[in-house]
Amino acid sequence: MTYDCSFLTEILDEDQVSFGDSARQNHAEDWGGAKMAVTPDAVCWPESTADVSAVLEAANDREIPVTPYAAGTSLEGNAVPAFKGISLDLMRMDSVIDVRPDDLQIDVEPGVMGSAVNDAVESHGLFFPPLPSSGDISTIGGMIVNDASGMKTVKYGEVADWVLELEVVLADGTVVETGSKAVKTSSGYNLKELIIGSEGTLGIVTRATLELEGLPEQIRGGRAIFPTLDDAAEAIFDAIRSGVDVAKIELIDELAATMANDYLGTGLPDAPMIFVEFHANHGIEEEIAFCRSIFEAHDVEQFETAGEERMDELWQARKDMAYVVREWDPSLQSLHPGDVTVPISKYPELIRLSKELGEEYGLSVSCFGHAGDGNVHYTILVDPEDPEMVEAGEEVYRKVVEQAIDWGGTATGEHGIGLGKRQFLELEHGEAGVELMRRIKSVFDPKDTLNPGKMFPETVEKGGRVQLTQD
Amino acid sequence: MTYDCSFLTEILDEDQVSFGDSARQNHAEDWGGAKMAVTPDAVCWPESTADVSAVLEAANDREIPVTPYAAGTSLEGNAVPAFKGISLDLMRMDSVIDVRPDDLQIDVEPGVMGSAVNDAVESHGLFFPPLPSSGDISTIGGMIVNDASGMKTVKYGEVADWVLELEVVLADGTVVETGSKAVKTSSGYNLKELIIGSEGTLGIVTRATLELEGLPEQIRGGRAIFPTLDDAAEAIFDAIRSGVDVAKIELIDELAATMANDYLGTGLPDAPMIFVEFHANHGIEEEIAFCRSIFEAHDVEQFETAGEERMDELWQARKDMAYVVREWDPSLQSLHPGDVTVPISKYPELIRLSKELGEEYGLSVSCFGHAGDGNVHYTILVDPEDPEMVEAGEEVYRKVVEQAIDWGGTATGEHGIGLGKRQFLELEHGEAGVELMRRIKSVFDPKDTLNPGKMFPETVEKGGRVQLTQD
Repeated sequence: MTYDCSFLTEILDEDQVSFGDSARQNHAEDWGGAKMAVTPDAVCWPESTADVSAVLEAANDREIPVTPYAAGTSLEGNAVPAFKGISLDLMRMDSVIDVRPDDLQIDVEPGVMGSAVNDAVESHGLFFPPLPSSGDISTIGGMIVNDASGMKTVKYGEVADWVLELEVVLADGTVVETGSKAVKTSSGYNLKELIIGSEGTLGIVTRATLELEGLPEQIRGGRAIFPTLDDAAEAIFDAIRSGVDVAKIELIDELAATMANDYLGTGLPDAPMIFVEFHANHGIEEEIAFCRSIFEAHDVEQFETAGEERMDELWQARKDMAYVVREWDPSLQSLHPGDVTVPISKYPELIRLSKELGEEYGLSVSCFGHAGDGNVHYTILVDPEDPEMVEAGEEVYRKVVEQAIDWGGTATGEHGIGLGKRQFLELEHGEAGVELMRRIKSVFDPKDTLNPGKMFPETVEKGGRVQLTQD
Repeated sequence: MTYDCSFLTEILDEDQVSFGDSARQNHAEDWGGAKMAVTPDAVCWPESTADVSAVLEAANDREIPVTPYAAGTSLEGNAVPAFKGISLDLMRMDSVIDVRPDDLQIDVEPGVMGSAVNDAVESHGLFFPPLPSSGDISTIGGMIVNDASGMKTVKYGEVADWVLELEVVLADGTVVETGSKAVKTSSGYNLKELIIGSEGTLGIVTRATLELEGLPEQIRGGRAIFPTLDDAAEAIFDAIRSGVDVAKIELIDELAATMANDYLGTGLPDAPMIFVEFHANHGIEEEIAFCRSIFEAHDVEQFETAGEERMDELWQARKDMAYVVREWDPSLQSLHPGDVTVPISKYPELIRLSKELGEEYGLSVSCFGHAGDGNVHYTILVDPEDPEMVEAGEEVYRKVVEQAIDWGGTATGEHGIGLGKRQFLELEHGEAGVELMRRIKSVFDPKDTLNPGKMFPETVEKGGRVQLTQD
């Protein structure tokens, strides 16, 4: 089915609407890949809250799906217009509205890039602590609605923890404000947290007030090399339970190290590595020594640390991991790029399980991720032309996610459900939990026009994860 | 109207139900005071999730109101059974279910006292950082559903920030789990945050998984005395915007100091004071020196610090403030005990406004609170027998709350809406925001049996705040 979206030109200026193939195809998929792609019928670029409100109201009247889009860096098909209709591209709403250094606050539009927040406040000695490492290429709006987090979450929490107030346009065009510019509030139901992580299915974020923090006076980085993956995983668990104050603590396994060494020519051993970063105002050397003592108890072979000028070099293998995986073997592709997250005591077991399943099924499985949070991106490499290999990969994938949920963890720590993780929603939240979510969706969006097809499992194809458009 | 609650004895054991006057009267009010009291028709004490579920299901079938009750330390009438029916007392569900020190987690029932959490984990070198100072006398369940915070929120965040997972019984008796034992999740809508702060109007919390942290290695306390209230308020603002790492930073004004000196015989000047506490693993002296330099820039007259053994002595005036206010002048009572919270840059103005309004209306207004969060408990002292004085007090109260909201703050930073703050809900959240909240309430509790009459403004008596039972 194709929707007639010609009404958009009556609401917006000519240069804010496109029905052209190129624009539409550019909005068909996110970083989750082409297998989930669906081409929208139209793309529009609102430039204000009023624009967003007018488009949503008109689309809602006509029962036309609207799916928000920004940088497209989501991994689970979250920004894919699964039922076609309108792709609402928020990249022109990219203004820093107000910086209030005295309140440690900034107001931004949703299309502001993460790094632009830091640029806007650096001269005040401030930064936005939870910014994911993809902050250079992803937007604040996308981070908020996908409940993003990243390397520094182990110290500073998630993006959600630093969002104070949101302006949101509801499905029928109504504009609401949620949260408060006070740093705490216990007034009414927490609609702000309901919008955070709702993937554009409950409303469109048009303005966000973020909290900031003073830049740390001391920053040091480190790279530790371990004899076995088990040693490295146990070292991370031990560091976290002992309360080592790390700002980042990342793991890559030996396969990932091999890929990085091949690609980058780093000349390091093909061994599991932990990358750390420390932030402090006082006593950073004592904290590093504390960390070293724990790593040594787990047979670390080498632990190098460096100040800011040499940190990038130490960290190179981790920093380039997403590219490295893609470049390693052109015949193989990563099956699914998302994550699972478990309680930290289960982290070593999760890593072991991922590797063992890889061996059992004869697949290359590489693990890396924000280990301090119990987070792993397990990359299952398959030849997409080989259906048996793909099926084996899917089975490994399912087993890992199901085990993570069984351990009290989550199917998705930081990338949302989108299309990719719908099959696990009910396993994680139970029938009653999903039913509540469905009824909340009906409250916000009774006609189901906002990013339909996402999150809820109804539309998962049996035995696969590909989304069909609504015909 | 009186509800027939005799069915309770069919569901629960004899010693779990009471229809006696004494038990019912003990559940008629919270610390918000007798003017909001409503006596329930019955009290019951569930001892398990199954008990809660059975009571809720049966009450829902009969459309009988159920209001949760625990320690009764809420301030806004949150635990008052406004429409009578059943007071569901959760104090017998007071088990520590599981301590997992390796995961930095604890599972507790809702009736566990806050301090019992710390007692249960102290031997592991852990603590529950956001515990309010009322943690000795209030329950974890009450803190969660009222979205509590306290002195240490300035460093560690709110109670909400340390809740990972909740088991919740819905109005019809269905049991759901929300959240995850992973430290982060972006899976589905955030039902956990919707339950937090919902004051028992959406469901009853029957189990909570809380996050813990390692005890700090260094703790120091301090008390600073300032020449004027303005100096003290500006010093707090300056400390926060400069990023001084305080674990607590509390203000009391000269009137509060006078009350404390009279009551406690401390021999201190009747001058505004700031109380601070520092937590660190390294460099606590450097941080105290940083704080001192800021206080000195605001003309501090005396700044004493002490280790743990003498901290209580330094802090005594602040610690006993709630009692001190009650004891000062027997003919005067505090009009409303709750708080407002504003962005920190508005904090000095908020303090000035409270005092100026007191002068303008000829009333004693005393300010104290968790200043680092922009939080103030402004105590308006009135003679309850003097209607004109009470009316003047109500006007001061309204003006302060309305100004706080106008500055982007909140009517209630840490005590919820309950009965006391309903009149401000729409001003803070707008008509559309409150309408969404109402519809969410209908999703969770279509028959309106869970703590009815709370939060929503419909039932506020014109010109007053007293709640009538439903006749």
